[in-house]
Amino acid sequence: MKKYCFGIDVGGTTVKCGLFQTDGTVVEKWEIHTRTEENGRLILPDVAETINKKIEERKLKKEEIAGIGIGVPGPVNENGDVAVAVNLHWGFVAVAKEMEQLTGLKVKAGNDANVAALGELWKGGGVGYHNLILVTLGTGVGGGVIINDKIVAGPHGAAGEIGHAHVEDAITDPCNCGNCGCLEQVASATGIVRLAKEELAASDEASLLRKGPISAKSVFDALKAGDALAERIVERFGCYLGKALAVYACVTDPEVFVIGGGVSKAGPILVEYVQKYYKEYAFSTCKSAAFALATLGNDAGIYGAAKMML
Amino acid sequence: MKKYCFGIDVGGTTVKCGLFQTDGTVVEKWEIHTRTEENGRLILPDVAETINKKIEERKLKKEEIAGIGIGVPGPVNENGDVAVAVNLHWGFVAVAKEMEQLTGLKVKAGNDANVAALGELWKGGGVGYHNLILVTLGTGVGGGVIINDKIVAGPHGAAGEIGHAHVEDAITDPCNCGNCGCLEQVASATGIVRLAKEELAASDEASLLRKGPISAKSVFDALKAGDALAERIVERFGCYLGKALAVYACVTDPEVFVIGGGVSKAGPILVEYVQKYYKEYAFSTCKSAAFALATLGNDAGIYGAAKMML
Repeated sequence: MKKYCFGIDVGGTTVKCGLFQTDGTVVEKWEIHTRTEENGRLILPDVAETINKKIEERKLKKEEIAGIGIGVPGPVNENGDVAVAVNLHWGFVAVAKEMEQLTGLKVKAGNDANVAALGELWKGGGVGYHNLILVTLGTGVGGGVIINDKIVAGPHGAAGEIGHAHVEDAITDPCNCGNCGCLEQVASATGIVRLAKEELAASDEASLLRKGPISAKSVFDALKAGDALAERIVERFGCYLGKALAVYACVTDPEVFVIGGGVSKAGPILVEYVQKYYKEYAFSTCKSAAFALATLGNDAGIYGAAKMML
Repeated sequence: MKKYCFGIDVGGTTVKCGLFQTDGTVVEKWEIHTRTEENGRLILPDVAETINKKIEERKLKKEEIAGIGIGVPGPVNENGDVAVAVNLHWGFVAVAKEMEQLTGLKVKAGNDANVAALGELWKGGGVGYHNLILVTLGTGVGGGVIINDKIVAGPHGAAGEIGHAHVEDAITDPCNCGNCGCLEQVASATGIVRLAKEELAASDEASLLRKGPISAKSVFDALKAGDALAERIVERFGCYLGKALAVYACVTDPEVFVIGGGVSKAGPILVEYVQKYYKEYAFSTCKSAAFALATLGNDAGIYGAAKMML
């Protein structure tokens, strides 16, 4: 009988680590520094070392450990290989295989955003559901798709790359992905700033936002303070995102959309503006899909990584 | 060892039936009339009767038969229950359970469009792939999503309802689904006629289409004859559909889009206009997805139904 599982989330600056009981209870969480020098070749040995130390320190038996789940910021194939992970300075790395050799434990690897979606399904905003789309609103827009409790990775590792749906023909400056008019350009933290600048430039209307500095947070704060111009910005954000989610819904028909990332700290009011447009544009039987805020924050990755292994 | 499998596709006027070897070879195909009277309560007994007769006629042993796969025009849940199937005059019907009782064989039921997608993956335009989106361009726009060789049905049975993605704000007359601006309103046979009428009304430019009658076929025929106005219509159709497929791609990241339905009889030129826009709008790693025409025509349903059971 397996009692424990490790969940690891490798980021560009820190590696988040979790030791879990197989029921999802956290035994311990800690972090180590991500050493990206030398093309990131030290990262996996560092992770293996901290895991091996933890096993020793807690006197765990290897046969009690189900294995290690590991999320990495790049496309991961079914064998647990990463083609490239820019933030880790990695080219091709056989993550699962290498980690198995370094630890003697079973290892599964997945894309960090997809893994976070599984975490939110298991112990976060999506508890009780089996089909979910996670939308992460941060500097960019990321996502993860779960169908019947399983991550959808996609043969090119691009499933859940929902920030790069084309939503606006009028945008002519390129997104980080090279295309123009991506959801990320209007619904991320930077996208909301774009919309705010457009609205501020379009009129001389008084607004709390004219004092600056403008951020996604200041826009939502102004909305909460009753600022009409801020409301127009959030309406536009909600329309772009709600409409896009309605399109995604007719592909996989999720039970719940979980909204996370820094921008989601705005709280339930954000969901309200997105869900309003979602309901307007979604196919009839999809209109009832639930909306929830993510609850695990930066821990979604370690939860999901552990769950992926179980 | 199972040698045979039945694939059944229940439509509003006929039930298509197939007896397959488990390797996908067709032993025999036939049809029976769909009796929709009395709220369609005779349909499943009729199907069971024709199957039982076929077993007798061919002296098959029940232990050689893997079972019956059955596609129906309505949302189907995991138990093989249909909530409602308007064209069959059905309310709730426990299709799989009832057919099992009537035949003594194992039965799996699925939505007809999803089942057709599986058929095209198995023996049609999607052979060799494991992840596919089928787009059916007929009177409406239907679809089916396959991930890792499995149908994605969705908890509300709405996965693959890609004809009801919102793609055009300017359309104010409602789609059959009740929303406005659905892909179906611009990319189906009737949608292409809509675009043609708009283009014809917008100018006095000479066109083969001015002779009428206007249909999706006449538009593609005119395009092939070098008609400039017809080309503008097909460009608009290709842009709507290619852009929409690019959005679907960032959700499930398919390896191939298979395009079927009556409109797809226009042939490779149709794919060319869609793929051009798909490549323009798709996320970088999705741009390489393949495009293929469906090859099974009306038989996709019986193939997919049989495969679903195997």
